[in-house]
Amino acid sequence: MAEGYRPRGMYFEEFTAETQVESQGRTITEADIVNFAGLSGDFNTIHTDAEFSKTTPFGERIAHGMLGLSVATGLANQLGFIDGTVIAFIGLEWKFKGVVKIGDTIHLAAKVKQTRAMKAMGGGFVVFDARVINQRGEIVQQGEWTVLMKSRT
Amino acid sequence: MAEGYRPRGMYFEEFTAETQVESQGRTITEADIVNFAGLSGDFNTIHTDAEFSKTTPFGERIAHGMLGLSVATGLANQLGFIDGTVIAFIGLEWKFKGVVKIGDTIHLAAKVKQTRAMKAMGGGFVVFDARVINQRGEIVQQGEWTVLMKSRT
Amino acid sequence: MAEGYRPRGMYFEEFTAETQVESQGRTITEADIVNFAGLSGDFNTIHTDAEFSKTTPFGERIAHGMLGLSVATGLANQLGFIDGTVIAFIGLEWKFKGVVKIGDTIHLAAKVKQTRAMKAMGGGFVVFDARVINQRGEIVQQGEWTVLMKSRT
Amino acid sequence: MAEGYRPRGMYFEEFTAETQVESQGRTITEADIVNFAGLSGDFNTIHTDAEFSKTTPFGERIAHGMLGLSVATGLANQLGFIDGTVIAFIGLEWKFKGVVKIGDTIHLAAKVKQTRAMKAMGGGFVVFDARVINQRGEIVQQGEWTVLMKSRT
Amino acid sequence: MAEGYRPRGMYFEEFTAETQVESQGRTITEADIVNFAGLSGDFNTIHTDAEFSKTTPFGERIAHGMLGLSVATGLANQLGFIDGTVIAFIGLEWKFKGVVKIGDTIHLAAKVKQTRAMKAMGGGFVVFDARVINQRGEIVQQGEWTVLMKSRT
Amino acid sequence: MAEGYRPRGMYFEEFTAETQVESQGRTITEADIVNFAGLSGDFNTIHTDAEFSKTTPFGERIAHGMLGLSVATGLANQLGFIDGTVIAFIGLEWKFKGVVKIGDTIHLAAKVKQTRAMKAMGGGFVVFDARVINQRGEIVQQGEWTVLMKSRT
Repeated sequence: MAEGYRPRGMYFEEFTAETQVESQGRTITEADIVNFAGLSGDFNTIHTDAEFSKTTPFGERIAHGMLGLSVATGLANQLGFIDGTVIAFIGLEWKFKGVVKIGDTIHLAAKVKQTRAMKAMGGGFVVFDARVINQRGEIVQQGEWTVLMKSRT
Repeated sequence: MAEGYRPRGMYFEEFTAETQVESQGRTITEADIVNFAGLSGDFNTIHTDAEFSKTTPFGERIAHGMLGLSVATGLANQLGFIDGTVIAFIGLEWKFKGVVKIGDTIHLAAKVKQTRAMKAMGGGFVVFDARVINQRGEIVQQGEWTVLMKSRT
Repeated sequence: MAEGYRPRGMYFEEFTAETQVESQGRTITEADIVNFAGLSGDFNTIHTDAEFSKTTPFGERIAHGMLGLSVATGLANQLGFIDGTVIAFIGLEWKFKGVVKIGDTIHLAAKVKQTRAMKAMGGGFVVFDARVINQRGEIVQQGEWTVLMKSRT
Repeated sequence: MAEGYRPRGMYFEEFTAETQVESQGRTITEADIVNFAGLSGDFNTIHTDAEFSKTTPFGERIAHGMLGLSVATGLANQLGFIDGTVIAFIGLEWKFKGVVKIGDTIHLAAKVKQTRAMKAMGGGFVVFDARVINQRGEIVQQGEWTVLMKSRT
Repeated sequence: MAEGYRPRGMYFEEFTAETQVESQGRTITEADIVNFAGLSGDFNTIHTDAEFSKTTPFGERIAHGMLGLSVATGLANQLGFIDGTVIAFIGLEWKFKGVVKIGDTIHLAAKVKQTRAMKAMGGGFVVFDARVINQRGEIVQQGEWTVLMKSRT
Repeated sequence: MAEGYRPRGMYFEEFTAETQVESQGRTITEADIVNFAGLSGDFNTIHTDAEFSKTTPFGERIAHGMLGLSVATGLANQLGFIDGTVIAFIGLEWKFKGVVKIGDTIHLAAKVKQTRAMKAMGGGFVVFDARVINQRGEIVQQGEWTVLMKSRT
């Protein structure tokens, strides 16, 4: 850590059934889709061909599901509550329930579903019930994230 | 679709218990991590601060787990076997088992685990057992991807 | 190659006068132009200044010709037919016949024009007649690409 | 604001002579310099030509001063203390005192130097004494940032 | 310098009170803001959340002030007048006077305000009065840039 | 054009058999290759898979030929000699003679080979003999670029 920096993250013991967080919003732009296609290498026509996309049920290009999920993890990180105290992202169970279109604004809502001490690993698992929600209040992605958090001592 | 283009994807009925695919490799670079931090907004110090990362068990910056997963979906897409026949990414169950370091080369191996016709949705679910494997043959990420594929008719 | 990966490319001997390919489409976005300006360093006002571009015959910013050509090579690569069997891009003769505007969707059509065995180089030259075509069926770029392909043995 | 989101920023009245913040670190990579050249359009050879840079006093490419400053503003933002309560960045006085080389890790330290109520503007000016510090504790950039913060009421 | 390249920059002695430059224009796009957020790490909602931005006095997302300033330095560099003769960017005093919105086109106007020989440093300081001006002729950013230029001998 | 901006480009009539230009250098980085793969969509393993590339004659990843060519057009543009006076890039004949590896520094040398007035098009064709040269003085790409330049009147 940079000298003087006080990480803001919560330790394993601080997470309870009451813990919940809500992130700021982020608008998913055409540029995000273009950049994500280039980064992931997924140039599927539903993301990159506007003419083809007119013929789909959505009528236009849609964001990669993984783009929405990636942005959600970034929004979580920006909240600072796992900053310096997260050891690892362990796994996830995830449903892509709806699409994110160009111009939609999404944010993350997450609450603790379960915690489990893992002393040998220096902390414990925290399982979050996580939802990605758009500007109309629709849940477009939803599932569980399991994260290994440091113990305070 | 662009006129004359013949999508190369397989239809729901073509997926059997024997279906398996293996992608080309892709080296995860420092630039990929920098670009993914910028795209997702996840600037956690384990990805972006080389000095801090020296003090972790890994001793260096590691790739975002979601970067490895995103690249894996891109590698899958590049194989062409869902090109023009995939309707939607339905969901995933995923474990981040090991880390991807700068310079590691990963590829995707996937085989069909289960299929389920969903006539009302114009096709069916195909569940893949998917693994992300590095240049030493280690499985660094693993789980199930469920995809809705078009029916031939 | 990643273990288990079976390159999908065709060998020199497989290319005949009948060989032709047609790629998927890709919409050229404002983000692509911005990113290409930044990558190439070409910030000419016809690509980056909307006010100036109103005074040109096109009335708006246009894509760099080299962006269209670069995307065309990417679309060719995504088809998989030179995957693992191409040795080198030898050269090209190329005409920029029309402009690509923001929002235009282009694809590549290519057919074999000539082949020439180059045994000392382990394969042979394949010359393609290549065309970049927009969503209105207009040929916006056209010419020849010469590629050195591996021999099967 | 996304529904349920509680901005974490401090209001004008909360800033006192004791207020100081210290950010996490961020390693400046070759990719950052490449990306900043492309975004700003500044391809000066001291940033983009390794051969020329060998002949300079630094002996290698250096980061754009503006890249270090831009990253510093991002690091400040990530701390959350102006999140939702900043109205505008008013101005800065800045000295580029040393260079940032590829691989250097910088962080921001800032403390309040002065506050001034601006009731007609709905808050007040907060002047920060800001320093960008590298992994050896050297101050590489330094100066004052003036920001207009919201009043609590 | 690449062999044969003749740097076009002016030497310290060539700068007089009459020296002034005016750059080409550059349109600031949504992609530039997305890319700058990712590069700087500043995802403040006034730059990245279209829904929130509707509730601000501007009614829409605005460009980072530092993006406008960074682009201005790039536009200056592209003029070539400091190419190969600039030693260092020494410092700046800067006011963000107005906002840059998506689609605005800005350019740089700069004139020499003061020069001061710094023989021990191999040249001298040139202080520019610099202005960033939009397509309506409004000065949106303004201040002084101090640059150390090489002496001819 | 931004008000006050004086384009620096040469008009058709100014190009003679003596006209030649030499650009600054630019180092091609791993980040450039990563970014170009993402922009073009060309993820061929010779550019993106370090393990596979060890087995090729080059022993490492190489830059896309089109990346070198794109950078060369950017370097040409930065020289300013076609700034505001170029009407269109008409075509090119091009040979990829050698590879560009990560860390190589290339620059452009170009001289006029031929000019042809095209009064109906408001100017004339200028044909350049263009070469891309690396830090060892090797010509890695070479050919002819045909550009339509404005007439002075």
